[in-house]
Amino acid sequence: MTNYDGFFSRAAGHMKASAIRKMGGVAAEGRDVVSFAPGFPAPETFAWQDFQEIAHELLSGRDGSVLQYGPTRGYRPLVDAIASVMARRGAPTLPERLLVTTGSQQGLDLVARVLLDPHDVMLVELPTYTGAISAFRNVQADMVGVRQEADGIDLAELDETYLRLAREGRRARLLYLVPNFQNPTGLLIGSSKRLALLEWAERRDVLIVEDDPYRDLYFEDSATEADVRPIRADDRSGRVVYLSSFSKTLAPGYRVAWIDAPPAVAAKLEIAKQASDLCTGELDQRIVFEACRRGILDRQAPLLRAHYQHKRDVMVGALTREFGGDVTWPAPRGGFFLWATLPPGVNADAMTARAVEHGVVYVAGQAFFVNGSGRHFIRLSFSAPTPARIEEGVRRLAATIREEQAACQSGSPAPAVP
Amino acid sequence: MTNYDGFFSRAAGHMKASAIRKMGGVAAEGRDVVSFAPGFPAPETFAWQDFQEIAHELLSGRDGSVLQYGPTRGYRPLVDAIASVMARRGAPTLPERLLVTTGSQQGLDLVARVLLDPHDVMLVELPTYTGAISAFRNVQADMVGVRQEADGIDLAELDETYLRLAREGRRARLLYLVPNFQNPTGLLIGSSKRLALLEWAERRDVLIVEDDPYRDLYFEDSATEADVRPIRADDRSGRVVYLSSFSKTLAPGYRVAWIDAPPAVAAKLEIAKQASDLCTGELDQRIVFEACRRGILDRQAPLLRAHYQHKRDVMVGALTREFGGDVTWPAPRGGFFLWATLPPGVNADAMTARAVEHGVVYVAGQAFFVNGSGRHFIRLSFSAPTPARIEEGVRRLAATIREEQAACQSGSPAPAVP
Repeated sequence: MTNYDGFFSRAAGHMKASAIRKMGGVAAEGRDVVSFAPGFPAPETFAWQDFQEIAHELLSGRDGSVLQYGPTRGYRPLVDAIASVMARRGAPTLPERLLVTTGSQQGLDLVARVLLDPHDVMLVELPTYTGAISAFRNVQADMVGVRQEADGIDLAELDETYLRLAREGRRARLLYLVPNFQNPTGLLIGSSKRLALLEWAERRDVLIVEDDPYRDLYFEDSATEADVRPIRADDRSGRVVYLSSFSKTLAPGYRVAWIDAPPAVAAKLEIAKQASDLCTGELDQRIVFEACRRGILDRQAPLLRAHYQHKRDVMVGALTREFGGDVTWPAPRGGFFLWATLPPGVNADAMTARAVEHGVVYVAGQAFFVNGSGRHFIRLSFSAPTPARIEEGVRRLAATIREEQAACQSGSPAPAVP
Repeated sequence: MTNYDGFFSRAAGHMKASAIRKMGGVAAEGRDVVSFAPGFPAPETFAWQDFQEIAHELLSGRDGSVLQYGPTRGYRPLVDAIASVMARRGAPTLPERLLVTTGSQQGLDLVARVLLDPHDVMLVELPTYTGAISAFRNVQADMVGVRQEADGIDLAELDETYLRLAREGRRARLLYLVPNFQNPTGLLIGSSKRLALLEWAERRDVLIVEDDPYRDLYFEDSATEADVRPIRADDRSGRVVYLSSFSKTLAPGYRVAWIDAPPAVAAKLEIAKQASDLCTGELDQRIVFEACRRGILDRQAPLLRAHYQHKRDVMVGALTREFGGDVTWPAPRGGFFLWATLPPGVNADAMTARAVEHGVVYVAGQAFFVNGSGRHFIRLSFSAPTPARIEEGVRRLAATIREEQAACQSGSPAPAVP
């Protein structure tokens, strides 16, 4: 039989399977597992009946183009609807800046391919979203991490890192940020820091890749629309490539997201997309457009904020009850994630097998750190499980951690995954 | 404002806009244009009513996973249905060899990224599919073309080219082929040549990328199921990476296609897909699965064969009537395309503006040749226009060519695009 080792590209040699997707698979094996691993939205919040009616009308056959190939930029009425969404976020835009993407993951992939060469250096938050790490790793970029404070990335360390790299002859050209309810930490970048980041990018001639899937999901008890104003909204000189998505507000099954970028960058991204998948699914785009046009998106947003805020409350309550102060986290003010620091001596990765045995999964923190640290963190998604399952999952997690602590103290090894 | 020149990757510098997508755009501008440019299936053949019923059931909300993120490999029942499709094509397979892709364009992109490094050399047919050229160009591969005979790629020239490159120290590791109703020529590779290609790939340690979107669309007056047997069906040693799609048989708007590859290659493709778009649209996959399960795909195939055969007849009849022997083509025995050689002295690219003025568009042949030749060819898609529009388009094409011939003889320039 053929030996394939000699056939793989260097890029393929660098590719790693996603930790999130792997942990997602554990839950799919059909056992009783509470999954806090993948950042899935809650399907019970989807506008099923509206989608059913919209699909029925679209698939009547009156308009043949509904199931045809479409323009690479996206279905034009949807592009215009996205421009309206951008305007409501404080960032009026133009069609020549917009590109519909097959989920924001494709957006990240296109940005990486168009803006990074192998061994180019770029800056990311510590920790940061694993999907972005994968996209940047696949073009063999070198990612350098900058730590975060309570109000987001540490500006002093950011500039020090930039200057240290510059002294080594390596010019960092991109900074990747998730300013709203960051994946995985749930943190918000403060408003004044957002403006300072723009000034910094201008001074250092860096482009900011602003990834903003959770913007609409601010929790009204602790955040306002002003807190989630995109960096892009104050960009006067074309420093920001902005990504957002309908996956968290309408449904991820449609794979409809977008990039807003300076026209010269958008034009290159469009050509890259032609060769990536020609166009995003036309039926999906039409359904999403109709959901915008009929006001479903606007109707959903406050419902989703309340839904996920409640689940956040349930998780925080359960964690507090089970752990007291032994496990800590920054309070999530929006989004899907709670970022927990484990008790001293407990290693998240090593504990995974025991957690699966107890019927609970999370994503171990290390996957989110480009510098190999993060062993004492876990990312818990509270978005998909029901409140009762969140309670149950936290109980299982507490049992896991107590056992792990006891085992660490007695020196016995973790069990193998059953 | 920011100057972006210094930000683009080398890969971005190599990217070129698709000639097919560009010509597709001309027709979209709303003028009376008969478009023979894009290879669009005919929407009047789509199973609208079935799709409407299927979508209605899927969107009832009973199964929340219909609009959720799905596994990167694909919706498992669809993967199994694809295995059945492969078996009926003479190529039984296993789930670990299969990956659902967001259209075959994504399949080509993933194959390119996983199997090619910048400056790697690979072999393609002269001419070949522009979408594949784009995908391979985007990873900065060097494509070397091999001419085709009436029964497909010239085996002697293929081996000579391989050996010449080897003498230059360049090992060609991939051969890209479209054996059934090739895009753009419409040619079929002969059965004995398919077996010879497998032997050649084994002897030279090359992988064959077999792109097979048109297999079901053989015209029953001139081709049989035996003629379209995939190369993959006789592959005993894992030499073939096989791509196919539901875009031409169900609808392209769903963006559902697949790759069948040796398990080691499929595993790498899956990881590459994680970072490309996480997963193909779940609703689209469910609809396609239901269309397989309910026998709609099987019911459609003979109808589509008859539909496109009739349109082929109309186009061939009209061309014969208008041109006699001045324009020639290999008789299409299936698929969507007629590949026409223009009269001596007429340049397809130069004639484009005049064609648009006359209200007809095609794809000029040069886009399909990796060696810069092909000026005297045009690709005409007969798949989407109605028979009456095909007649009208051929009349307009004939007027264009006659004017162009007269202009060439008198030395006057082609008009600018209005």
